[in-house]
Amino acid sequence: MAAATMRAVRYSAKGPPSVMQLEDIPTPKPLTGEVLVRVEFAGVNPVDAKIRSSNGLLILPLPATPGKDCSGYVAEVGPDVTSVKVGDRVVVADRVFRSGGTYASYHVAKEEEVILLPDGYSLEEGASIGAPYLTAIRAIYHSVRGKAGETIFIHGASGQVGIAAVQLGVAHGFTVYGTAGTDEGLKRVLDNGAKAVFNHRKDGYLDEVKKVIGPNGPHIIIELVASTNFQHDLDLAPRRGRIAVIGGNGQPLSVNPAAIMAKELVVTGVMVTGSTPEEWKEMTSIFREGLAKRWIRPVIQKIYPLSDVVQAHTDIEASADGAQGRLVLKI
Amino acid sequence: MAAATMRAVRYSAKGPPSVMQLEDIPTPKPLTGEVLVRVEFAGVNPVDAKIRSSNGLLILPLPATPGKDCSGYVAEVGPDVTSVKVGDRVVVADRVFRSGGTYASYHVAKEEEVILLPDGYSLEEGASIGAPYLTAIRAIYHSVRGKAGETIFIHGASGQVGIAAVQLGVAHGFTVYGTAGTDEGLKRVLDNGAKAVFNHRKDGYLDEVKKVIGPNGPHIIIELVASTNFQHDLDLAPRRGRIAVIGGNGQPLSVNPAAIMAKELVVTGVMVTGSTPEEWKEMTSIFREGLAKRWIRPVIQKIYPLSDVVQAHTDIEASADGAQGRLVLKI
Repeated sequence: MAAATMRAVRYSAKGPPSVMQLEDIPTPKPLTGEVLVRVEFAGVNPVDAKIRSSNGLLILPLPATPGKDCSGYVAEVGPDVTSVKVGDRVVVADRVFRSGGTYASYHVAKEEEVILLPDGYSLEEGASIGAPYLTAIRAIYHSVRGKAGETIFIHGASGQVGIAAVQLGVAHGFTVYGTAGTDEGLKRVLDNGAKAVFNHRKDGYLDEVKKVIGPNGPHIIIELVASTNFQHDLDLAPRRGRIAVIGGNGQPLSVNPAAIMAKELVVTGVMVTGSTPEEWKEMTSIFREGLAKRWIRPVIQKIYPLSDVVQAHTDIEASADGAQGRLVLKI
Repeated sequence: MAAATMRAVRYSAKGPPSVMQLEDIPTPKPLTGEVLVRVEFAGVNPVDAKIRSSNGLLILPLPATPGKDCSGYVAEVGPDVTSVKVGDRVVVADRVFRSGGTYASYHVAKEEEVILLPDGYSLEEGASIGAPYLTAIRAIYHSVRGKAGETIFIHGASGQVGIAAVQLGVAHGFTVYGTAGTDEGLKRVLDNGAKAVFNHRKDGYLDEVKKVIGPNGPHIIIELVASTNFQHDLDLAPRRGRIAVIGGNGQPLSVNPAAIMAKELVVTGVMVTGSTPEEWKEMTSIFREGLAKRWIRPVIQKIYPLSDVVQAHTDIEASADGAQGRLVLKI
């Protein structure tokens, strides 16, 4: 049985990382179809910080606990839950944003958001894979309807979602190219099976990309840094090329839409939380397959004690281009 | 039999409308699978003027005759042509751009580009329907994969392609809304079956659009004036909304991609000449159905003698927002 109260990160007003503090609050109860998880590690996603700081598109009731990813053990199940039982070692990936997030000793999730973590994966790794891998899966399969055999160019491939897309693409029979901006990042992309990697901080790298990929270009572009690269993507894409925009700093871009028209490009965005229940089932089925076949191999950057949550958010906000590995909180 | 020589509009260098002149040149011969048409009327498309004036994406061997639409009578058929015969009254809609265009007494087209014109349509109308209707068909069915029952918002609906999209949408069971910028245009959009029409020159018209269409927004936006409207489209589109960009002045836009990401919008371009042979078959099949069921009802703006071709191009370049009806040349 779970304790009556738990530790949780909370904030009562939006603002800088310092609005978050540790509090003791009542442990939630799982309702029908829900699972209570005793959280061991929570993954820190860039979107956690965006929701905390901004009054933009997403309005959650306050006070709120951040986080949509975690790992841990099933502590209690609500009625009608059949796929997991108390004591199971699991990954939680929330499909929607909730005020009751994962930066807490306990977290309630829907059954379809709770996935058994196979032996061989550590709990730290379990907390590192939800959002990045589900984003990569949604990008390739739902957003641009990728088909094995196609060529994927991942613009900003060394970060969490980028590497997840490299691993998924390679495992599923795509030809994968990527870019990175540091020696470590370049090596990581190659080590994960990309056919070639390019330094997007080097002048003229796009000419090199065109030369290596050839005149037909990549069928698919996964764009992790739209604020810098989007016009380049339009230039690089072949006729009917599909571009999935995942990252960017939210600033307006100057875009010449002529290329979208002349080449009939398809440009789309990727939001895991926008998935329908049917799409979620498809996404988590590929996710489970990735765990079973071990092509899911997250890169962990740093583990923080929960008391350092302010620092963790400060750090993730500073890594704007998403080029680093996963930040994880030890609960 | 066709005469050995014919009159044709030609230009030997790109430039302003005055580079075009009338010349006598050899009448072409149809090869296997080709049809020689005695041209009665040629339709003037904005893209004809763009190709003439610009050294942009499309490079045709010079000298060139402009035009990709015409109407007339079959004068001769090459080997293996079975769907039309000498004397048939036809519409020609070229699938690809060629140096040998339709502004001439005779035009050679591929058999799949030549479509019987049913009684009840004048030859002037026949020359007015190729590109606009095939563009509307491709936009709705190939670019955004429209399904009957969905809501379409046509941003700039009173011009040739806009009205074609209104007629197609209404005939095929979509709920159609549109905008126009003049009283005549507003009336035309309503008269063609739109559920409501909005004046896009009126301040705050988008709020009115949102109120009338409702919070779920239009599933599909057909954008005819991207250079002015594109950011508005991103605001107006609902989650997973699909936006087909057809028109625009080719100038760079300032676009905030945040909406594309957050709402997982799908933005794409439309080019009839980009269609595959299979897609062309689908497009012309819907086109034939539109002729048979008479939902194709073009709006003719003005008919020019061939000797006034310079004026016709001057006029089409001046109507940048595409709000007017069809300009036609009498050959």
